[in-house]
Amino acid sequence: MNKQPFDGVQVLAFDIFGTVVDWHGSIVREMAQLHPGVDGDAFALAWRTGYKPAMARVMSGELGWTRIDELHRMILDGLLPQFGLADLGEDARRHLNRVWHRLAAWPDSVEGITRLKRRFIVSTMSNGNIGLLTNMAKRAGLPWDCVLSAEVFRAYKPDPAAYLGVARTFDLAPEQVMLVAAHHDDLEGARACGLRTAYIERPLEFGAAHPKDVSPRPDNDLHCKSLVELAQVLGL
Amino acid sequence: MNKQPFDGVQVLAFDIFGTVVDWHGSIVREMAQLHPGVDGDAFALAWRTGYKPAMARVMSGELGWTRIDELHRMILDGLLPQFGLADLGEDARRHLNRVWHRLAAWPDSVEGITRLKRRFIVSTMSNGNIGLLTNMAKRAGLPWDCVLSAEVFRAYKPDPAAYLGVARTFDLAPEQVMLVAAHHDDLEGARACGLRTAYIERPLEFGAAHPKDVSPRPDNDLHCKSLVELAQVLGL
Repeated sequence: MNKQPFDGVQVLAFDIFGTVVDWHGSIVREMAQLHPGVDGDAFALAWRTGYKPAMARVMSGELGWTRIDELHRMILDGLLPQFGLADLGEDARRHLNRVWHRLAAWPDSVEGITRLKRRFIVSTMSNGNIGLLTNMAKRAGLPWDCVLSAEVFRAYKPDPAAYLGVARTFDLAPEQVMLVAAHHDDLEGARACGLRTAYIERPLEFGAAHPKDVSPRPDNDLHCKSLVELAQVLGL
Repeated sequence: MNKQPFDGVQVLAFDIFGTVVDWHGSIVREMAQLHPGVDGDAFALAWRTGYKPAMARVMSGELGWTRIDELHRMILDGLLPQFGLADLGEDARRHLNRVWHRLAAWPDSVEGITRLKRRFIVSTMSNGNIGLLTNMAKRAGLPWDCVLSAEVFRAYKPDPAAYLGVARTFDLAPEQVMLVAAHHDDLEGARACGLRTAYIERPLEFGAAHPKDVSPRPDNDLHCKSLVELAQVLGL
């Protein structure tokens, strides 16, 4: 048989927001229930837009180490006035901020991960904090072998310390770890560290009104429409 | 109903070596296969005896942060000559050192944790490193929600940073976390930080030739013969 691009891979490390769970749809649905007067689509997009700049402030040293729960809350507090929710109380803000713990899995995620788990160590490798990822997994039925997070390595992706941290955690060479993600910048960061990469199409990540370009890029080892297709491609 | 000692507990954090898995029996069995001329009982006890002093060297600052895999290896290299195995090669040493990744669960562990998982977040809280705990869980079928380790907090139990780190990971008060362990010093450390405590009897932890005193101590919230009994006591 020909050498496959996944020969020797022992760990599949999954990006979470957008790759395994549907943050946009979940936030839109919760907002429709909690605050039906608000444009949930615009609200979800604005909240997510604040995410990378907030992590950049941590990685630049402007902020000390700060978990995503706290970053989400800082962004949320800044957004609420723009959406007519300046008067929201502390309990309601705390509850809304935890929507990121309650995100729903894409329909193929549980089956795909369950099948992949038969041969590989399946781990999160998310910028989300450990508590968030654990609560999400328990609610959505995501059967991780291990919950790795930027919080473990004190480094947000695409910092190399995050990708190399996964390999080091399992005493593996970088090429024995494959990052599974729906974002090319994340996969580029992993590839630069020597990890294998699998791109997952999530054309509706930003909602049906904002379709995403999911065309293949040749640099990735694998390109799949879903986690179930990834399991099939890997023979599981 | 009366207030129960577990009201409000959301996370059960498990000690692993001796509490969930049988390190002594597993090492004795592997040694009988790999090196039948060696006294496996004495070998297992000597290896384990090196464990606390090695962690103390890390926590005192004499050694920089060092994972249990590396500490186990340092102890092993020191022991082999005493057991007539000074000539063991590098590959054989690496394989033997990984016996800690292959420890067998006590017969009640998988059922007990599976039942407890229905209501609680079940997490490891071991001085073992994340890779070791993940490999062990995958092999033994231990269905953790989360794999927490001294490696996450860079602090070995009984350092308070380890116990308080579990509560902080889940944004909980210390009394919402219960440590489950077969060792009174571990439970004392947790109690001093405000965690709840459940003692599990493991009279054969050190082998049938060295029975352990497992009599109850009044300071623990719960005292059980097994993890299945713990599930029963907690109504699961």
